[in-house]
Amino acid sequence: MIVRDYNEAVNSRRRIDSDGWHSVRLLLKDDGMGFSFHITTIHEGAELEMQYANHLESVYCISGEGDIEDCATGEIHQIRPGVIYALDKHDRHILRARKEMQMACVFNPPVTGREVHDETGAYPLEAEPV
Amino acid sequence: MIVRDYNEAVNSRRRIDSDGWHSVRLLLKDDGMGFSFHITTIHEGAELEMQYANHLESVYCISGEGDIEDCATGEIHQIRPGVIYALDKHDRHILRARKEMQMACVFNPPVTGREVHDETGAYPLEAEPV
Repeated sequence: MIVRDYNEAVNSRRRIDSDGWHSVRLLLKDDGMGFSFHITTIHEGAELEMQYANHLESVYCISGEGDIEDCATGEIHQIRPGVIYALDKHDRHILRARKEMQMACVFNPPVTGREVHDETGAYPLEAEPV
Repeated sequence: MIVRDYNEAVNSRRRIDSDGWHSVRLLLKDDGMGFSFHITTIHEGAELEMQYANHLESVYCISGEGDIEDCATGEIHQIRPGVIYALDKHDRHILRARKEMQMACVFNPPVTGREVHDETGAYPLEAEPV
Protein backbone atom coordinates (compact mmCIF):
# COMPACT_ATOMS: atom_id res chain seq x y z
CA MET A 1 0.00 0.00 0.00
CA ILE A 2 1.27 3.42 -0.96
CA VAL A 3 0.18 6.40 1.18
CA ARG A 4 1.14 9.99 0.32
CA ASP A 5 0.01 13.45 1.38
CA TYR A 6 -0.44 16.35 -1.03
CA ASN A 7 0.40 18.77 1.78
CA GLU A 8 3.89 17.28 2.06
CA ALA A 9 4.37 16.51 -1.65
CA VAL A 10 3.64 20.11 -2.63
CA ASN A 11 6.97 21.08 -1.06
CA SER A 12 8.93 18.25 -2.66
CA ARG A 13 10.30 17.29 -6.05
CA ARG A 14 6.85 15.93 -6.87
CA ARG A 15 5.82 19.52 -7.59
CA ILE A 16 6.50 21.06 -10.97
CA ASP A 17 5.84 24.68 -11.86
CA SER A 18 5.03 26.12 -15.25
CA ASP A 19 3.41 29.20 -16.77
CA GLY A 20 -0.10 29.48 -15.40
CA TRP A 21 -0.14 26.18 -13.52
CA HIS A 22 1.66 23.91 -11.10
CA SER A 23 1.17 20.22 -10.55
CA VAL A 24 1.92 17.71 -7.80
CA ARG A 25 2.40 14.17 -9.04
CA LEU A 26 1.12 11.87 -6.31
CA LEU A 27 1.34 8.65 -8.34
CA LEU A 28 3.74 8.10 -11.25
CA LYS A 29 4.59 5.25 -13.59
CA ASP A 30 7.06 3.73 -11.13
CA ASP A 31 4.25 3.13 -8.67
CA GLY A 32 2.93 0.41 -10.96
CA MET A 33 -0.73 1.41 -10.92
CA GLY A 34 -1.00 1.67 -14.71
CA PHE A 35 -2.02 5.35 -14.49
CA SER A 36 -0.61 8.48 -12.90
CA PHE A 37 -2.52 10.80 -10.57
CA HIS A 38 -1.74 14.49 -10.23
CA ILE A 39 -3.27 17.39 -8.32
CA THR A 40 -2.91 20.34 -10.68
CA THR A 41 -3.59 23.99 -9.86
CA ILE A 42 -4.53 26.31 -12.71
CA HIS A 43 -3.75 29.88 -11.72
CA GLU A 44 -6.44 32.55 -11.83
CA GLY A 45 -6.55 34.19 -15.25
CA ALA A 46 -4.54 31.45 -16.98
CA GLU A 47 -5.45 30.44 -20.53
CA LEU A 48 -3.72 27.24 -21.62
CA GLU A 49 -3.90 25.59 -25.03
CA MET A 50 -2.94 21.93 -24.78
CA GLN A 51 -3.05 18.63 -26.58
CA TYR A 52 -1.64 15.32 -25.36
CA ALA A 53 -0.88 13.31 -28.45
CA ASN A 54 0.35 10.32 -26.48
CA HIS A 55 -1.81 10.26 -23.37
CA LEU A 56 -5.48 10.04 -22.41
CA GLU A 57 -6.33 12.33 -19.50
CA SER A 58 -9.32 12.90 -17.25
CA VAL A 59 -9.61 16.05 -15.14
CA TYR A 60 -12.02 16.44 -12.19
CA CYS A 61 -12.58 19.89 -10.73
CA ILE A 62 -12.24 19.97 -6.93
CA SER A 63 -12.44 23.75 -6.54
CA GLY A 64 -12.44 26.94 -8.58
CA GLU A 65 -14.16 28.08 -11.75
CA GLY A 66 -13.39 28.33 -15.43
CA ASP A 67 -14.13 26.74 -18.78
CA ILE A 68 -12.74 24.41 -21.42
CA GLU A 69 -12.99 24.95 -25.15
CA ASP A 70 -12.99 21.95 -27.46
CA CYS A 71 -10.92 23.22 -30.39
CA ALA A 72 -12.43 20.65 -32.78
CA THR A 73 -15.98 21.92 -32.30
CA GLY A 74 -15.56 25.36 -30.71
CA GLU A 75 -17.87 24.23 -27.91
CA ILE A 76 -17.19 25.74 -24.48
CA HIS A 77 -18.00 23.77 -21.32
CA GLN A 78 -18.22 25.47 -17.93
CA ILE A 79 -15.98 24.05 -15.20
CA ARG A 80 -16.98 24.20 -11.55
CA PRO A 81 -16.55 21.76 -8.63
CA GLY A 82 -17.88 18.35 -9.64
CA VAL A 83 -17.31 18.72 -13.39
CA ILE A 84 -15.03 16.16 -15.08
CA TYR A 85 -13.72 16.24 -18.62
CA ALA A 86 -11.99 13.35 -20.33
CA LEU A 87 -9.78 13.80 -23.38
CA ASP A 88 -10.71 10.48 -24.93
CA LYS A 89 -9.74 11.59 -28.45
CA HIS A 90 -6.48 13.37 -27.55
CA ASP A 91 -8.61 16.50 -27.93
CA ARG A 92 -6.87 19.81 -28.46
CA HIS A 93 -8.37 22.18 -25.92
CA ILE A 94 -8.07 25.56 -24.27
CA LEU A 95 -8.45 25.68 -20.50
CA ARG A 96 -9.29 28.98 -18.82
CA ALA A 97 -9.42 29.70 -15.08
CA ARG A 98 -11.66 32.55 -13.95
CA LYS A 99 -10.82 31.61 -10.36
CA GLU A 100 -7.87 29.40 -9.38
CA MET A 101 -8.87 25.80 -10.06
CA GLN A 102 -7.65 22.68 -8.29
CA MET A 103 -8.01 19.60 -10.47
CA ALA A 104 -7.51 15.85 -9.93
CA CYS A 105 -5.88 14.54 -13.13
CA VAL A 106 -5.42 10.94 -14.26
CA PHE A 107 -3.11 10.03 -17.14
CA ASN A 108 -3.04 6.79 -19.14
CA PRO A 109 -0.37 5.71 -19.87
CA PRO A 110 1.13 6.97 -16.62
CA VAL A 111 3.45 9.94 -16.68
CA THR A 112 7.00 9.04 -15.66
CA GLY A 113 7.69 12.41 -14.05
CA ARG A 114 10.52 13.10 -16.44
CA GLU A 115 8.45 14.53 -19.30
CA VAL A 116 8.31 18.17 -20.22
CA HIS A 117 5.52 19.68 -22.29
CA ASP A 118 6.95 20.03 -25.80
CA GLU A 119 6.18 22.79 -28.29
CA THR A 120 2.81 21.24 -29.18
CA GLY A 121 1.80 21.08 -25.51
CA ALA A 122 2.12 17.29 -25.56
CA TYR A 123 4.08 15.02 -23.30
CA PRO A 124 6.34 12.77 -25.38
CA LEU A 125 5.72 9.08 -24.77
CA GLU A 126 8.32 7.48 -22.50
CA ALA A 127 10.53 10.54 -22.45
CA GLU A 128 13.89 10.01 -20.85
CA PRO A 129 15.82 12.67 -18.98
CA VAL A 130 18.29 14.58 -21.12
CA MET B 1 -14.23 14.97 -25.33
CA ILE B 2 -16.46 13.68 -22.56
CA VAL B 3 -17.85 16.21 -20.06
CA ARG B 4 -19.95 15.16 -17.05
CA ASP B 5 -21.10 16.79 -13.82
CA TYR B 6 -21.15 15.01 -10.47
CA ASN B 7 -24.07 17.19 -9.38
CA GLU B 8 -26.23 15.74 -12.16
CA ALA B 9 -24.78 12.21 -12.07
CA VAL B 10 -25.50 11.84 -8.35
CA ASN B 11 -29.22 11.71 -9.22
CA SER B 12 -28.79 9.26 -12.09
CA ARG B 13 -28.07 5.58 -12.61
CA ARG B 14 -24.39 6.41 -12.22
CA ARG B 15 -24.99 6.43 -8.46
CA ILE B 16 -24.89 3.19 -6.51
CA ASP B 17 -25.72 2.89 -2.84
CA SER B 18 -24.42 0.34 -0.38
CA ASP B 19 -23.98 -0.11 3.36
CA GLY B 20 -21.89 2.76 4.64
CA TRP B 21 -21.06 4.29 1.27
CA HIS B 22 -22.38 5.48 -2.06
CA SER B 23 -20.47 6.03 -5.26
CA VAL B 24 -20.98 7.99 -8.47
CA ARG B 25 -19.20 6.51 -11.46
CA LEU B 26 -18.19 9.42 -13.68
CA LEU B 27 -16.06 7.36 -16.08
CA LEU B 28 -16.53 3.66 -16.78
CA LYS B 29 -14.94 1.06 -19.02
CA ASP B 30 -17.15 1.99 -21.97
CA ASP B 31 -15.61 5.46 -22.02
CA GLY B 32 -12.40 3.94 -23.31
CA MET B 33 -9.99 5.74 -20.97
CA GLY B 34 -8.39 2.53 -19.68
CA PHE B 35 -9.41 3.38 -16.09
CA SER B 36 -12.63 4.26 -14.30
CA PHE B 37 -13.13 7.32 -12.10
CA HIS B 38 -15.62 7.43 -9.23
CA ILE B 39 -16.52 9.96 -6.56
CA THR B 40 -17.26 7.85 -3.50
CA THR B 41 -18.75 9.04 -0.24
CA ILE B 42 -17.98 7.08 2.93
CA HIS B 43 -20.65 7.75 5.50
CA GLU B 44 -19.73 9.01 8.96
CA GLY B 45 -19.07 6.14 11.31
CA ALA B 46 -18.69 3.55 8.55
CA GLU B 47 -16.09 0.80 8.93
CA LEU B 48 -15.52 -1.12 5.71
CA GLU B 49 -13.26 -4.12 5.20
CA MET B 50 -12.37 -4.50 1.53
CA GLN B 51 -10.04 -6.19 -0.87
CA TYR B 52 -10.09 -5.94 -4.65
CA ALA B 53 -8.51 -9.12 -5.93
CA ASN B 54 -8.86 -8.10 -9.56
CA HIS B 55 -8.35 -4.33 -9.56
CA LEU B 56 -5.75 -1.77 -8.56
CA GLU B 57 -7.30 1.30 -6.94
CA SER B 58 -6.11 4.72 -5.83
CA VAL B 59 -8.19 6.86 -3.49
CA TYR B 60 -7.64 10.60 -2.95
CA CYS B 61 -9.40 12.32 -0.04
CA ILE B 62 -11.20 15.52 -1.10
CA SER B 63 -12.97 16.12 2.22
CA GLY B 64 -13.65 14.45 5.55
CA GLU B 65 -11.59 12.54 8.06
CA GLY B 66 -10.85 8.93 8.89
CA ASP B 67 -8.20 6.26 8.66
CA ILE B 68 -7.16 3.18 6.74
CA GLU B 69 -5.74 0.03 8.27
CA ASP B 70 -3.41 -2.16 6.23
CA CYS B 71 -4.49 -5.65 7.27
CA ALA B 72 -1.13 -7.17 6.23
CA THR B 73 0.88 -5.00 8.64
CA GLY B 74 -1.71 -3.65 11.09
CA GLU B 75 -0.46 -0.15 10.28
CA ILE B 76 -3.06 2.63 10.46
CA HIS B 77 -2.75 5.71 8.25
CA GLN B 78 -4.71 8.88 8.95
CA ILE B 79 -6.89 10.17 6.12
CA ARG B 80 -7.62 13.87 5.70
CA PRO B 81 -7.98 16.10 2.62
CA GLY B 82 -4.92 15.70 0.40
CA VAL B 83 -4.06 12.14 1.46
CA ILE B 84 -3.98 9.47 -1.25
CA TYR B 85 -3.66 5.74 -0.80
CA ALA B 86 -2.98 3.27 -3.59
CA LEU B 87 -3.75 -0.43 -3.28
CA ASP B 88 -0.82 -1.52 -5.46
CA LYS B 89 -0.72 -5.02 -3.95
CA HIS B 90 -4.47 -5.66 -3.90
CA ASP B 91 -4.13 -4.87 -0.20
CA ARG B 92 -6.83 -6.01 2.19
CA HIS B 93 -7.77 -2.94 4.20
CA ILE B 94 -10.26 -1.48 6.64
CA LEU B 95 -11.50 2.01 5.93
CA ARG B 96 -13.05 4.05 8.74
CA ALA B 97 -14.76 7.45 8.45
CA ARG B 98 -14.79 9.63 11.57
CA LYS B 99 -16.42 12.34 9.48
CA GLU B 100 -18.11 11.72 6.12
CA MET B 101 -15.37 11.43 3.52
CA GLN B 102 -15.56 12.28 -0.18
CA MET B 103 -12.96 10.39 -2.20
CA ALA B 104 -11.81 10.46 -5.83
CA CYS B 105 -11.22 6.83 -6.81
CA VAL B 106 -9.44 5.44 -9.88
CA PHE B 107 -9.70 1.76 -10.85
CA ASN B 108 -7.45 -0.18 -13.22
CA PRO B 109 -8.75 -2.13 -15.04
CA PRO B 110 -11.81 0.09 -15.35
CA VAL B 111 -15.02 -0.92 -13.64
CA THR B 112 -17.80 -1.71 -16.10
CA GLY B 113 -20.56 -0.47 -13.79
CA ARG B 114 -22.19 -3.88 -13.70
CA GLU B 115 -20.11 -5.39 -10.89
CA VAL B 116 -21.32 -5.98 -7.40
CA HIS B 117 -19.03 -6.45 -4.42
CA ASP B 118 -18.93 -10.21 -3.79
CA GLU B 119 -18.63 -11.91 -0.43
CA THR B 120 -14.88 -11.17 -0.22
CA GLY B 121 -15.47 -7.46 -0.88
CA ALA B 122 -13.92 -7.82 -4.36
CA TYR B 123 -15.30 -6.85 -7.71
CA PRO B 124 -15.22 -9.86 -10.05
CA LEU B 125 -13.22 -9.18 -13.21
CA GLU B 126 -15.39 -8.44 -16.24
CA ALA B 127 -18.60 -9.32 -14.46
CA GLU B 128 -21.62 -9.48 -16.70
CA PRO B 129 -25.13 -8.64 -15.57
CA VAL B 130 -27.13 -11.63 -14.36
